[in-house]
Amino acid sequence: MTTAPSTIPDFSRPDGLITAVAQDAASGQVLMVAHMNRVAWEETLATGRAVYYSRARGRLWRKGEESGNTQNVRAAYVDCDGDAVLLVVEQVGGAACHEGYPSCFFRQQTPEGLKIVAERVFDPKNVYQKSSE
Amino acid sequence: MTTAPSTIPDFSRPDGLITAVAQDAASGQVLMVAHMNRVAWEETLATGRAVYYSRARGRLWRKGEESGNTQNVRAAYVDCDGDAVLLVVEQVGGAACHEGYPSCFFRQQTPEGLKIVAERVFDPKNVYQKSSE
Repeated sequence: MTTAPSTIPDFSRPDGLITAVAQDAASGQVLMVAHMNRVAWEETLATGRAVYYSRARGRLWRKGEESGNTQNVRAAYVDCDGDAVLLVVEQVGGAACHEGYPSCFFRQQTPEGLKIVAERVFDPKNVYQKSSE
Repeated sequence: MTTAPSTIPDFSRPDGLITAVAQDAASGQVLMVAHMNRVAWEETLATGRAVYYSRARGRLWRKGEESGNTQNVRAAYVDCDGDAVLLVVEQVGGAACHEGYPSCFFRQQTPEGLKIVAERVFDPKNVYQKSSE
């Protein structure tokens, strides 16, 4: 049996991170997968806006800090073993992905390889001045 | 800008794993978050059944191998930076979680703490003889 974590969510992994999934409250579409440390989780709950931890940048990532495409959190769930959370969000701007698509999962695996199955909401060149999210 | 990974999905992280999210094809509910190594991903695509990599057990985890609650994969998507995949699945038995709930995200965060917001489909004691998933 899985041992219950001492805190919920359980930030006891060596990197101190949990996995976070964002789902669109209106469409039910899975928008993105990211990570959170304890500070990101607590700020998300306190502010009602999704805050992640960017592994690439090694710092908090307030979703939409550059693009303006913030996520308003309608509900938050914790999974059975406490190492993943699900945020049901209102996606401001209609696009979660830095590539300009509504969801980061805009490519479907097919027998012929990956196929883009979504349409861009914005052009990243017009949104990001310096670097991508 | 994010550099395109050399393979898609990108298994180049030190642990060789990507994150996998399973979503119910019928309800749209996010069922669970797990991990995959390259073998798990390739077996999933080849068989049409979800195969994960259990970090706790250090081996492939053919979902439902003990409970019978397999996942038939209807579609698979890869995210923008290649380190997460989304499986849209038919959840055999109606429950993805080893705790007997349809989704592993059966606890909602509320100001008073975590609250169970789902009903059990099965009693784990009747399903798992030796150990939990």
